[in-house]
Amino acid sequence: MTRTMTLSINGDRLNQSLDELAQIGAKSDGDNGSCIRRLAFSPEDLAARDRITQWMEAAGMGVRIDAAGNLIGTYPGVDPKAPALATGSHIDTVPSGGRYDGALGVVAGIEIARLLQESQIPLHHPFEVIAFADEEHTMVGSKAMAGTAPTDPERYAPPDNEAIQDCLVRVGGDWTRLTEARRDRSDIICFLELHVEQGGVLEAVDRDIGVVEGIVGQRRYRITIEGQANHAGTTPMNMRRDALTTAAQLILAVEDMAKHYPGEPVATIGAVTVWPNAINIVPGFVEMKMGMRDLAEPVIEHMLAQFKRKMETVAVATRTRIRIKPELELQPTLATNQVQDLIVESCQELGLSYTHLPSRASHDAQEIGKFTDMGMIFVPSRDGVSHSGEEYTSPQQCIQGANVLLQTLLKLDRYYR
Amino acid sequence: MTRTMTLSINGDRLNQSLDELAQIGAKSDGDNGSCIRRLAFSPEDLAARDRITQWMEAAGMGVRIDAAGNLIGTYPGVDPKAPALATGSHIDTVPSGGRYDGALGVVAGIEIARLLQESQIPLHHPFEVIAFADEEHTMVGSKAMAGTAPTDPERYAPPDNEAIQDCLVRVGGDWTRLTEARRDRSDIICFLELHVEQGGVLEAVDRDIGVVEGIVGQRRYRITIEGQANHAGTTPMNMRRDALTTAAQLILAVEDMAKHYPGEPVATIGAVTVWPNAINIVPGFVEMKMGMRDLAEPVIEHMLAQFKRKMETVAVATRTRIRIKPELELQPTLATNQVQDLIVESCQELGLSYTHLPSRASHDAQEIGKFTDMGMIFVPSRDGVSHSGEEYTSPQQCIQGANVLLQTLLKLDRYYR
Repeated sequence: MTRTMTLSINGDRLNQSLDELAQIGAKSDGDNGSCIRRLAFSPEDLAARDRITQWMEAAGMGVRIDAAGNLIGTYPGVDPKAPALATGSHIDTVPSGGRYDGALGVVAGIEIARLLQESQIPLHHPFEVIAFADEEHTMVGSKAMAGTAPTDPERYAPPDNEAIQDCLVRVGGDWTRLTEARRDRSDIICFLELHVEQGGVLEAVDRDIGVVEGIVGQRRYRITIEGQANHAGTTPMNMRRDALTTAAQLILAVEDMAKHYPGEPVATIGAVTVWPNAINIVPGFVEMKMGMRDLAEPVIEHMLAQFKRKMETVAVATRTRIRIKPELELQPTLATNQVQDLIVESCQELGLSYTHLPSRASHDAQEIGKFTDMGMIFVPSRDGVSHSGEEYTSPQQCIQGANVLLQTLLKLDRYYR
Repeated sequence: MTRTMTLSINGDRLNQSLDELAQIGAKSDGDNGSCIRRLAFSPEDLAARDRITQWMEAAGMGVRIDAAGNLIGTYPGVDPKAPALATGSHIDTVPSGGRYDGALGVVAGIEIARLLQESQIPLHHPFEVIAFADEEHTMVGSKAMAGTAPTDPERYAPPDNEAIQDCLVRVGGDWTRLTEARRDRSDIICFLELHVEQGGVLEAVDRDIGVVEGIVGQRRYRITIEGQANHAGTTPMNMRRDALTTAAQLILAVEDMAKHYPGEPVATIGAVTVWPNAINIVPGFVEMKMGMRDLAEPVIEHMLAQFKRKMETVAVATRTRIRIKPELELQPTLATNQVQDLIVESCQELGLSYTHLPSRASHDAQEIGKFTDMGMIFVPSRDGVSHSGEEYTSPQQCIQGANVLLQTLLKLDRYYR
């Protein structure tokens, strides 16, 4: 106990590695300053994968690339037959991305391997650090590992819309053997991912660490409203069937529903198109795109049912025809309770403040969590900004997150023994 | 008195002339059947003007074209120095127009001249029938006559965006002498326009004739809402500054305001543009176009003030920035009370049902009414449809309208004597 308490990662080295990785793909982002463009399967991604490989090898890890292009470093455990404890994230970015999204989780994992090597502290379980292939576009890496990857290559849209087969070959993967990348709980007993929040909750409630409760499920719908286009001058108010004023009622209903539902679901109408969209014509048709996310499937179901009832009432009152069509359905992935508890214990021992929160963004952990125990640790993003050159998490916050990751892994090594 | 009661127009000839005029510019409108394309200054418009000229001359009228391209037929009065009683409308159409909009008013005027010639009934005042130039696009004809026409040729957008100077030359007008088209009350004592309603009020209340109270004033505004674009997954509901849900509040406020205001103002948000308009992003910016129309300027002013107060409340509650910018301001033109009364008398004598109503569409009368007495007579449009091949007013309704026009003109001839 005393021993693990005194152990902590080398903060300077962690941040130096983050800096080094941030050089690969760094570019000017016009007026927005600098950002990072390290698209999956691009030359920059390949260069970054080389650097990660060198770091893993230098930290005493055996390195392999699976058929899905995942880069996997393994630090040996005392029991070579025990299932692995795994951590990691991704090093690819969106077209104008930041320094921390994904990178922090991979670099922190490597830093822990360096520490294990230096301190010669034995772990019972083998310790894996995984840089998943293409988190930002296809999630092919984590999905293949979870067995949830589509088998039709046409369903992948990697950057530049290249064929997924060609992409995988480039990073050392093999589309024809994709199923071999699949793993199970007898192979990875638990996966723990450190990541920046990509939202502003931790900053708003002023906490150091976010203990992730799970990755929310997501639904997307297309809603259409058919009214009647009419002369906006000559059609009296009481003779109108205005698709836009009808849409406005639904937009407010969606917001109100999500705001007042117990828990913290989100629901958004992000896109609206109006026909004919002219000042002198009463709108005759509106199309909207609605998204809902929550950790609990029943909450989403209940909100949807509530919205449909509202739709019916509004349609009658406005003499319009309202239709809703599902376009996407993603199940939530819950974080394992025991893993959350050990993250909390680690925070308490390190004197760090924390809060529980759902992850409303997608992460590799949402796929891995489908076949084994899973936990996620968040550190704050300044102003909640990510996917931008403005993305920022302080060196101190990165160190805190890596130390929570370290302490929790040490606890998990004992817990699963 | 007995004499005017027995006088009535030749209904068959009226409808035959309407049919004949409808041949000029008739075309197929795809799936919508047939429509009329007789754009101002086009070969079809020129052909129609020729036909009108022939009819006017055959009815014993002297015909001239003023500098603004207005085609004016004059039937002599007993007192050649008396100011004219004028009627008329326009014969140009929108790109896919109907048979009645404009044409009815011109043809009915000519039919009355034919009747005056046949019956040899003398009018005290000279009687003018005017086919105004380009009602549908620039209103150059009626505006020049009222002295309200812009003097900058760039401010005109005739069909096909030709130069207004070239357009006028083609129909026998002259841009350099445009001010000579101006007239005043000593020249035209009263203008009476028969027109199809272009709305569904008469049909809805089941009346034969609409006694127009005036042509509504119009305001147009550009409204912008500046919120904050944010990740629709990771931004909790209470941390959002959603420009679209804010817009929805304003859209409903505008509808509610117009619906519940005493009288019958209309207010419409017809156009909405959302940025970035993506399902996974909380909308950061919305632009809307709002129009308001009413017969009473104070009503428009009061609604605007009410809306601005609402805007301020909503901006504070939603933490957004809302701006409003005027883009168009047209004053209402009221119909002369005595003229309305004489239209009512005529309806009563003819046994026709009627209702008073505002015109919410623009007409040549709105310009002429700025310098002399004015009245308008509406006949029903089936389903309120106009500016379409579907536009329909029955032969019987056309005859009824023309007879009210005739009787009212006979009364006006006595009234102004």
